[in-house]
Amino acid sequence: MRYYEDLVIGTVTKSDRTYDVTREEVIEFAGKYDPQPFHLDDEAAAKTHFGRLSASGWHTAAMTMRMMVEGWRTQEPSASLGSPGVDELRWRKPVYPGDTLRAESKLISKRRMNSRREMGLMKTETTVYNQNDEIVLTMVSNGLIAVRDPDSDVE
Amino acid sequence: MRYYEDLVIGTVTKSDRTYDVTREEVIEFAGKYDPQPFHLDDEAAAKTHFGRLSASGWHTAAMTMRMMVEGWRTQEPSASLGSPGVDELRWRKPVYPGDTLRAESKLISKRRMNSRREMGLMKTETTVYNQNDEIVLTMVSNGLIAVRDPDSDVE
Repeated sequence: MRYYEDLVIGTVTKSDRTYDVTREEVIEFAGKYDPQPFHLDDEAAAKTHFGRLSASGWHTAAMTMRMMVEGWRTQEPSASLGSPGVDELRWRKPVYPGDTLRAESKLISKRRMNSRREMGLMKTETTVYNQNDEIVLTMVSNGLIAVRDPDSDVE
Repeated sequence: MRYYEDLVIGTVTKSDRTYDVTREEVIEFAGKYDPQPFHLDDEAAAKTHFGRLSASGWHTAAMTMRMMVEGWRTQEPSASLGSPGVDELRWRKPVYPGDTLRAESKLISKRRMNSRREMGLMKTETTVYNQNDEIVLTMVSNGLIAVRDPDSDVE
């Protein structure tokens, strides 16, 4: 089990699985959660900078989460206490049916919580690439993780 | 058509539609995009602070987007140029099957882009409440919008 003390700044984790973006899934997600015309229809999308049917940015975030969760499964379990949320989520380039996505995450910082010494806060920068190695999404995820030895002064 | 010049800081928009969170939809979304045990199964969730099956935070974000898009449909169309992304996305309280969500958005700032004078950047703070008026999600959305008269000095 990995705890706060085991985290090494700069560690990069690459997703084992890639994600194939399909037309059916793009339309299904957008139909439920982001029914803007350019996420549902090529003709409507042609009138915008997207040019053709594109995935909702929230769908790209969801596909990213799937890749991340599967990546965690291949690692040693961590004493995670959940995530309060995400910062700087940026949709950098459109995502289209036919794209294949992959994700990388880098641990960029960690600190102990001042108010709750048994918990640490870690920040992970995730970058999602398409098949042309173009960056389509970036975000900074905040994660809470247990401290193995809360009485220590480790920072 | 609403342009950058028509935006009024402090304007609050409430979603007309609420969103009923169902067990089937929670499991379906998590199965595809966030297959962590506490988003799939009551027994697994009972071992965590969630207590019972809870929605993925990304699912809550997706449900929020649906409410926002439907809210836009009831307003005057805006000269939107898309969204570069979101900041300070925070999952404040768990969301459970049986919850009913509603969303409010407040325009908190706007400015013209320095590099591209025909575009403005707006920031909207969205707050999502459950049926007990507890805040479950907050985020700051960045939006790009066209300036009606780019040659003017309006700020």
